[in-house]
Amino acid sequence: MRTTTGWQSLDPDSNALTRVTIERRDLRPDDIAVRIDYCGVCHSDLHRIHGLLGERDLVPGHEATGVVVATGAEVTGFAVGERVAIGTIIDSCGECAMCLAGQENYCYDHPTTTYGGTDRIDATPTVGAYSREYVLREKFAFHLPDSLAPAAAAPLMCAGVSVWEPLRAAGVGPGSRVAVAGLGGLGHLAVKLAAALGAEVTVLSRSTAKERDALRLGASGLVVTTDEAQVGAARGRFDLILDTISADHEFTPLISMLGLDGTLCVVGNPLLAGPKLRELGTGRKKLTSSGTGGLRQTAEMLEFCAAHDITADVETLPSSEVETALNRLADGDVRYRFVLDLSDLDT
Amino acid sequence: MRTTTGWQSLDPDSNALTRVTIERRDLRPDDIAVRIDYCGVCHSDLHRIHGLLGERDLVPGHEATGVVVATGAEVTGFAVGERVAIGTIIDSCGECAMCLAGQENYCYDHPTTTYGGTDRIDATPTVGAYSREYVLREKFAFHLPDSLAPAAAAPLMCAGVSVWEPLRAAGVGPGSRVAVAGLGGLGHLAVKLAAALGAEVTVLSRSTAKERDALRLGASGLVVTTDEAQVGAARGRFDLILDTISADHEFTPLISMLGLDGTLCVVGNPLLAGPKLRELGTGRKKLTSSGTGGLRQTAEMLEFCAAHDITADVETLPSSEVETALNRLADGDVRYRFVLDLSDLDT
Repeated sequence: MRTTTGWQSLDPDSNALTRVTIERRDLRPDDIAVRIDYCGVCHSDLHRIHGLLGERDLVPGHEATGVVVATGAEVTGFAVGERVAIGTIIDSCGECAMCLAGQENYCYDHPTTTYGGTDRIDATPTVGAYSREYVLREKFAFHLPDSLAPAAAAPLMCAGVSVWEPLRAAGVGPGSRVAVAGLGGLGHLAVKLAAALGAEVTVLSRSTAKERDALRLGASGLVVTTDEAQVGAARGRFDLILDTISADHEFTPLISMLGLDGTLCVVGNPLLAGPKLRELGTGRKKLTSSGTGGLRQTAEMLEFCAAHDITADVETLPSSEVETALNRLADGDVRYRFVLDLSDLDT
Repeated sequence: MRTTTGWQSLDPDSNALTRVTIERRDLRPDDIAVRIDYCGVCHSDLHRIHGLLGERDLVPGHEATGVVVATGAEVTGFAVGERVAIGTIIDSCGECAMCLAGQENYCYDHPTTTYGGTDRIDATPTVGAYSREYVLREKFAFHLPDSLAPAAAAPLMCAGVSVWEPLRAAGVGPGSRVAVAGLGGLGHLAVKLAAALGAEVTVLSRSTAKERDALRLGASGLVVTTDEAQVGAARGRFDLILDTISADHEFTPLISMLGLDGTLCVVGNPLLAGPKLRELGTGRKKLTSSGTGGLRQTAEMLEFCAAHDITADVETLPSSEVETALNRLADGDVRYRFVLDLSDLDT
């Protein structure tokens, strides 16, 4: 076995993680070992630490960048020293209709998640990327384009692809009228990506506090969702509303702003119950959701980001300050993604 | 005022309607008066008689065919003696984005419904087509194509267009894999229309009782939704599931049979709450609903039905037997639509 160091949640009532020694498997023929340099702090890490999915003793972390430090005997796609990005899934059955369609994220046999999952070969729990080393099949690792800064690129691997896939599925491009509800980790990347795809982008927010940021990120305006007059004036305006709000919230004002055949895609909190069907029926509006990305679209997203110089707006902290990051994330005090620098685990 | 005769619900606990005298307005310049020959019995008539929408003393009826008996001074589209079809809405604001898009059914100022609505000019309640005469703006009346039998064509005006619009919105055509859940008034027309559009059509039903009918109507097969093995074998099979079931029911097996980016369109009972978003997220599936049709699509549907020789499978009863029709409809004892022959109101 290989050993490394990481940050583990041992108390579901606390954001204080414990520095622990972690075992990683010896490399299988198609494995690579990655020195994790940066890992983003995702809202779902916070939820899962607090037991949302019934898990315990997690080492979180599923949007990471680093460098290859070892390769298995049959690895052909990566060499030691190359830059790597790791996302939310690290294996899938490879045989079902979803895997064959390049949508391993929807594998009928359940994709293996980067943490909190179960390895498909030895049945051990998967241990996340809040750690200095990660071992995974090369098939599920991505080359990090040279032009992308590794700290700011880490959040592309969950937040980025989670909004990229639904933007692409909706066919967003020039002429599309896209609104992004919630300007956080996912939302700020959705604005950048949708604008770069050529859409007219509006941010939907509870106040004007983030208006300046919205415009800087590429939006053409902001609608205050608590202002009935503004919501009324925006009736029927959007083809797609990408709802990245993680807190419980009302769908009605969002649905009212969709045009005929428009789509509300909720990615911020898919555990919510949907609205009454009747609201959707008035204007043939569609409700959908989405779950991270498949390998093909993740690679495509990284190429698009490199071509358009898109990364996340990040605040990077030493990994020893993970509790601060989690606390501030819980308070909404981040613009727009915390990234942990894991080099402090070497000392 | 003009007077006519019709059938009114005076007791929300009963399907027995009372024969009453009804006043119709004198013709406005753009009105036509229609002798109603046939009116279909819609499931929503049953629900609304029983107070689902809080209404009282309704004269139901919103899918009817007949003949023009008088025209207002400025009517240009209809002449006395011409065949007419009337649907679920008889007026709208004409000015909002939905009306301008030809989707008067989604009028932002609420379309005026054929019964249980409020006239936009004199604010009187609208009184439905379980009656011998109806008066409406010519704009909201349709020419009934010569080749369509008037009794069997009446249900096209609600049941037909209610499934036609979502089939067209989903772009159904050759190569589409469409399932129709529930084989009743809406469902049997959905099978006929989807098959005529070139789709491969499957019926989803709780038993095999309607399998022979499903094949006769144009389906290529039937999946029994209470049989887990059959549902499992159909995983991911459909691009569109048109859910015409009026009873409360589980969405989970239906969603499981949708392919990537597939759509579940619930038209049978839009008062239901939708499924958890998480179910939709696994495979980017879409949930939608729909509400009857706009003028343009209703006219298009009638032309399509004439070209493809499509009408409803109906059982026609004298209007004096409306209680029998409602009772049997409530029991599910109809293949597939009751139509009232209103000529008995002349005697």
